[in-house]
Amino acid sequence: MRNLLMKVNYDGTCYDGFQTQPKGNTIQDRLEQAILHLTGETTKITASGRTDAGVHAYGQPFNFTTSSQIPLERWCLALNARLPQDIVVTEAREVPLSFHSRRGAKRKTYRYTINGNRFPDPFQRRWQHHHPVQLDIPAMQQGLTHLIGTHDFTSFASRRSTKTSHVRTIFEAHMEIDRSMCRPSSTDQGVIYTYVTGSGFLQHMVRIIMGTLIHVGEGKLQADEVAEILAACDRAAAGPTAMSQGLALMSVEYEESWE
Amino acid sequence: MRNLLMKVNYDGTCYDGFQTQPKGNTIQDRLEQAILHLTGETTKITASGRTDAGVHAYGQPFNFTTSSQIPLERWCLALNARLPQDIVVTEAREVPLSFHSRRGAKRKTYRYTINGNRFPDPFQRRWQHHHPVQLDIPAMQQGLTHLIGTHDFTSFASRRSTKTSHVRTIFEAHMEIDRSMCRPSSTDQGVIYTYVTGSGFLQHMVRIIMGTLIHVGEGKLQADEVAEILAACDRAAAGPTAMSQGLALMSVEYEESWE
Repeated sequence: MRNLLMKVNYDGTCYDGFQTQPKGNTIQDRLEQAILHLTGETTKITASGRTDAGVHAYGQPFNFTTSSQIPLERWCLALNARLPQDIVVTEAREVPLSFHSRRGAKRKTYRYTINGNRFPDPFQRRWQHHHPVQLDIPAMQQGLTHLIGTHDFTSFASRRSTKTSHVRTIFEAHMEIDRSMCRPSSTDQGVIYTYVTGSGFLQHMVRIIMGTLIHVGEGKLQADEVAEILAACDRAAAGPTAMSQGLALMSVEYEESWE
Repeated sequence: MRNLLMKVNYDGTCYDGFQTQPKGNTIQDRLEQAILHLTGETTKITASGRTDAGVHAYGQPFNFTTSSQIPLERWCLALNARLPQDIVVTEAREVPLSFHSRRGAKRKTYRYTINGNRFPDPFQRRWQHHHPVQLDIPAMQQGLTHLIGTHDFTSFASRRSTKTSHVRTIFEAHMEIDRSMCRPSSTDQGVIYTYVTGSGFLQHMVRIIMGTLIHVGEGKLQADEVAEILAACDRAAAGPTAMSQGLALMSVEYEESWE
């Protein structure tokens, strides 16, 4: 048996998330179908983590074992020929049988994209949350810094979370603004990217962080209230869950250098 | 009566081009329907030029006359609320009744996008021509320079062109490469943008230029043969018509400063 580690980019717009569900059209289903078509083997793939319905990914790692002898360099093209156009496998390598995409993941980075310009962008609309109302970006950045470190993130987790511990570490978080698409002398705020890198993330965690930061940006919350929300360990204390389409998994790092 | 000049961005993927056709779903149809819903007036809009099926635009200018008294600042939001998500009006201003979007246009810039990376990009695939085969970019750039200036572009026009003159001026043309999405130690060539600015363009002109340059890039033609193809004034001398999805109208300039 071989253990194959691959990376996949997907536009999640049309899918019910990564992980197989009873009545869902998921990225995992499509990948497993493509592997079945190619190898004749029924497999269960393991990803670094699930993504919600509508969430996107650049380089989501997944692995699976196979007895297929197809050479490594042929896998990507062969799978892509059997996948819809919004799912593209970009890397394939062989790893020790002990390697596990989820358990081995040490750092994950997500990006949330807000289009703060007055009008939506027809080219980027599938992966931007359009929010033309004026946002106080420095206040949002200040609120975000309260989340860096190791904390109990119960306030920022779905009530449906079944994890025994909600303690996670956010190593790094920052915002970037791209004003290249702003129209001159307009109220356009640019495209606002928020990057969050952590040890792992609870269900809806980045989206609840973003919903809370948007409330800070709108002046509904003070930046320093984010610290109180965190301390409350109560989902009701935080803001709403921001729309999934703005979220993308950007990278996953492993202890041993699989990059 | 007022003459209103607007700009519209559109993802042309799902449309049969800009201009109304007997059995087509066109950008013009959608804009005129939105104006009818808003004002109750049946109008014919005039754009700076038509775009082919599948071609995109950033800031395509169009104008129309109306007796509606809706204030200028309300038009964009009101029309966007009546348009599909892939068509977004971004600017509206009042211009003299003599202004004509097509006749007044002095310079137009088109961009053609080739994804030269090994795998397609699921996020950008609707506006990229995926061409993973290695291209000789310096040769393509050299070929492109032969087209700058005032020439008879019959070799680069659709045989269906009904224009009495095929003489046009290309003011400026260049290529840019974005390697930010290239995977390390891969054969990825980056995303290759070709910008062409001219006085006006014949039907399929930029796409035939690109199909010819791709032949140069593949070594099927020598760069300097582009000059001979131009001199031949024969569509059969040039390369194929490149796929429409890679093409986007980027800007249109007028003599008086309507920018």
